[in-house]
Amino acid sequence: MATEANQRLMVESTLLREPLAGARADDLLIAVSAETGKAAEEALGRFDELIKGRRAGTVTEYRPKSLAVALDLLPSANWVLVSVPGRHAAEVARQALAADRNVFLYSDNVAIAEEVALKKTAGECGRLVLGPDCGTAIVAGVGLGFANRVRRGPVGLIGASGTGLQTIASRIHALGLGVSQAIGIGGRDLSREVGGATASQALALLAGDSATGVVVIVSKPPHPEVAERLLAQARAVAKPVVLQFQGYAVPGRRLGNLHFAVDLEDAAHLAVELAERSADDGAPEVAVDRGALRGLFSGGTLASEAYLRLSALLPDVASNLSGNQAAKLGAQAAPGHSVLDLGADELTLGRPHPMIDPELVVEHLARVGEERGVGTILLDVVLGDGAHPDPAAVLAPAVERVLAARDDLEILAVLVGTDEDPQDLEAQRERLEEVGARVFTSLGAAVDAGLARVATASAGRSPQGAEALEPPLVAVNIGVELFHEALVAQGVETVHVDWRPPAGGNEKLARILTRLEGSTMGQAK
Amino acid sequence: MATEANQRLMVESTLLREPLAGARADDLLIAVSAETGKAAEEALGRFDELIKGRRAGTVTEYRPKSLAVALDLLPSANWVLVSVPGRHAAEVARQALAADRNVFLYSDNVAIAEEVALKKTAGECGRLVLGPDCGTAIVAGVGLGFANRVRRGPVGLIGASGTGLQTIASRIHALGLGVSQAIGIGGRDLSREVGGATASQALALLAGDSATGVVVIVSKPPHPEVAERLLAQARAVAKPVVLQFQGYAVPGRRLGNLHFAVDLEDAAHLAVELAERSADDGAPEVAVDRGALRGLFSGGTLASEAYLRLSALLPDVASNLSGNQAAKLGAQAAPGHSVLDLGADELTLGRPHPMIDPELVVEHLARVGEERGVGTILLDVVLGDGAHPDPAAVLAPAVERVLAARDDLEILAVLVGTDEDPQDLEAQRERLEEVGARVFTSLGAAVDAGLARVATASAGRSPQGAEALEPPLVAVNIGVELFHEALVAQGVETVHVDWRPPAGGNEKLARILTRLEGSTMGQAK
Repeated sequence: MATEANQRLMVESTLLREPLAGARADDLLIAVSAETGKAAEEALGRFDELIKGRRAGTVTEYRPKSLAVALDLLPSANWVLVSVPGRHAAEVARQALAADRNVFLYSDNVAIAEEVALKKTAGECGRLVLGPDCGTAIVAGVGLGFANRVRRGPVGLIGASGTGLQTIASRIHALGLGVSQAIGIGGRDLSREVGGATASQALALLAGDSATGVVVIVSKPPHPEVAERLLAQARAVAKPVVLQFQGYAVPGRRLGNLHFAVDLEDAAHLAVELAERSADDGAPEVAVDRGALRGLFSGGTLASEAYLRLSALLPDVASNLSGNQAAKLGAQAAPGHSVLDLGADELTLGRPHPMIDPELVVEHLARVGEERGVGTILLDVVLGDGAHPDPAAVLAPAVERVLAARDDLEILAVLVGTDEDPQDLEAQRERLEEVGARVFTSLGAAVDAGLARVATASAGRSPQGAEALEPPLVAVNIGVELFHEALVAQGVETVHVDWRPPAGGNEKLARILTRLEGSTMGQAK
Repeated sequence: MATEANQRLMVESTLLREPLAGARADDLLIAVSAETGKAAEEALGRFDELIKGRRAGTVTEYRPKSLAVALDLLPSANWVLVSVPGRHAAEVARQALAADRNVFLYSDNVAIAEEVALKKTAGECGRLVLGPDCGTAIVAGVGLGFANRVRRGPVGLIGASGTGLQTIASRIHALGLGVSQAIGIGGRDLSREVGGATASQALALLAGDSATGVVVIVSKPPHPEVAERLLAQARAVAKPVVLQFQGYAVPGRRLGNLHFAVDLEDAAHLAVELAERSADDGAPEVAVDRGALRGLFSGGTLASEAYLRLSALLPDVASNLSGNQAAKLGAQAAPGHSVLDLGADELTLGRPHPMIDPELVVEHLARVGEERGVGTILLDVVLGDGAHPDPAAVLAPAVERVLAARDDLEILAVLVGTDEDPQDLEAQRERLEEVGARVFTSLGAAVDAGLARVATASAGRSPQGAEALEPPLVAVNIGVELFHEALVAQGVETVHVDWRPPAGGNEKLARILTRLEGSTMGQAK
């Protein structure tokens, strides 16, 4: 900047003979100190090249030393890749957000409080902060950090883990399909503190992204509260969502549009399978809250599976399936959602098992049907030798009585049996349907129907910041040079910020530059 | 029994006018006390019918009051179904085992020490005790307890849970396939105390059963030590084994011949899918112990999945993936199996990530290669933008050096990448194979190959007692009458033991019967 002060300094440094008349603060003044005239000409020629390159928008070789200058050079940059050492990383990310850019934050050793603050800011301004400790992303067809080259396609990935995303993306490619976006969220995003801030943003964006047909989320197991919120949000997405939480006790293969994978390859296969199926497969039913859901089971294992499935999505499901005697007895009178195993010891003392005599089910059905807060009753009817010869005959009148008194209640029955069972499977089904029960042969389908009556989550706010995922991706890279080279190799317009000490270690020049007005330009030179 | 003492008692009771000359202790003496001659004749006629029925082998109506008499009446009975109240159940089961019969033990409230003792006896004499608290079994085509009518087929089931078995069996039937055997083991068999005694017997029997092509095991999660033994035994079975442990953190979709299902329907679908595939799919590789297995990973998620898979089958796999700092550092020097995440903070302080610079992998490879106890090294090579431009060029010479010094060592490499990655996937593979590494694109396959070098379990002792599963099933039922009726309905030859009080409540007769010699006959009458 040709300010008076700067010109005076240049004169003192013998870079300028005397101050230039008419030069002002908004002029750029270039001075070259060289041993030969030829060298000076070459230097000035090089400057002209760089200026031309800047005008043509291909500034891949010029390396400023600050983010601000880099963004000045490449104003169309919509992403900033940060891989400087952890102690500088949060500050650089903050600058990027302040400049209204999305951040890919590879650096680790960023304090969790910094992460929370950065993601809060990002959420407020509709930008994304991927990371810290985010190894991998594929955004608008461009790999950021460590990323494999995969064709574009209908699978949108969200991943807390870098090589998790890479393995799934590579496998999807090998299976002939492609990836719409792969959004890294960092290893701590699904912790209680960070609360899945980026995962939730990413899910809302992919939910609204017409190029994404299936969403995959890969992570270590989230904090239980975060998992519950994330799963509820995912349930409200009108697309299949594949979840792969390493070392997580999966509640079932499928809950509505949620598909639980158990390893990385499994996740890739499920995603490809779902993407190739019809698109309306994952559309969830209308999510209106109809009140508490009560499971009344005569089969212990069925009760247990129903409990696992419901607990994955609903908070505080009471049950007599485990816990101490007080908890068991308490479950019978719990006011919210609950699952009762009516075959449990404490309920069958001195009476036959409810599969032999369904009277116990009838009693509970009558009691629960009178509770106004209950909107859905889930029960099982198990056929076969040894069981009651005609359970529907005992249950149907009870179902009829309960439904006659309540038009806002639904009874969902899981019928377990075969067409060769002595009770006549179809006759049992008809008898129950006659009195208004909805009959299922799959426990999973029955639980899904129940969950559709209690779900309350939404797929997330309208996807503010969707342009973050739109091409062309233009980037500023600060830190690991390999990541810049990778962007260049992918044909991405990018500027690499050089974090070496100012003036390349030349002490005298460093002192002059430090004293020059306009620190930005000083760093840039 | 027409002993002198008994005849004297009958005379005293006016059932006999005087002792019969020539009647001996091994004669059966029948006396009828009736109000009319017609009634007496009818009673004697009924006795003749029962005797005839016994001779024809269709003694479904005559009801003795003890197991001993029942077995006397139906000596071909190979199974005893026990559903008397818990306090009598263990004693009845003991009698059945003493009589060399298999036991289906429906009763609950049997002490765990009794269960351990019963199963010990059963193991020693090559008999099965299914239960206590065993709701369901299908043996030799006959449903015991609660059971659905399903066609016979290639899927053998082992289940701790009754409705779990019923649901899977019904679903397999609905999918068009059938069940070879369904062996209930009771809810506590996979506890630490019982140690999977019946599950292990059942698995050995199904392993040796030519009619069984696929085995399914369904249960709540076993005690970790029991799980490890059971999985190791299942790994050695030359058939696919599907495992469904409710609420269990599955280590992967597939480990060799082990297939992990996450719900009941999933288990049924997997079993049908596997049964319809070629039979040699599940054949495990030769199980010879080649020494410790060491994982050296640059990808954290790959390390973590490898750790979960290995830990499911191997005891004490060390790792720096979790735990405190001491555990992390200890893992680097642990002498047995271990998995190291070389990208972890404590190993990359002040150095680039091993995906950027594989030198760290080279150093560990050299160190581990020198340990004589190590037989297998598992490593990952992750390609893509951002990663080292030619990792195989760095790793291959190191692999070559290690293998040159050791002919008993194998190096298994998982290659993650696509055919569009800048490193050239095929060239990377070739370079690594050239120097003797075995290269996989699936982590699961690489871990399987590693496990095949350390597995030591066998599929179980030769299946003593296999005749328990062979038709025809002939049964004595003691307890719940519905189970007897179910056997009759299935056309099974059976005797129901009547546990009502002796002499139907007639006090005088009860006293006489109690005093009669030969308590067995006394109870039987």
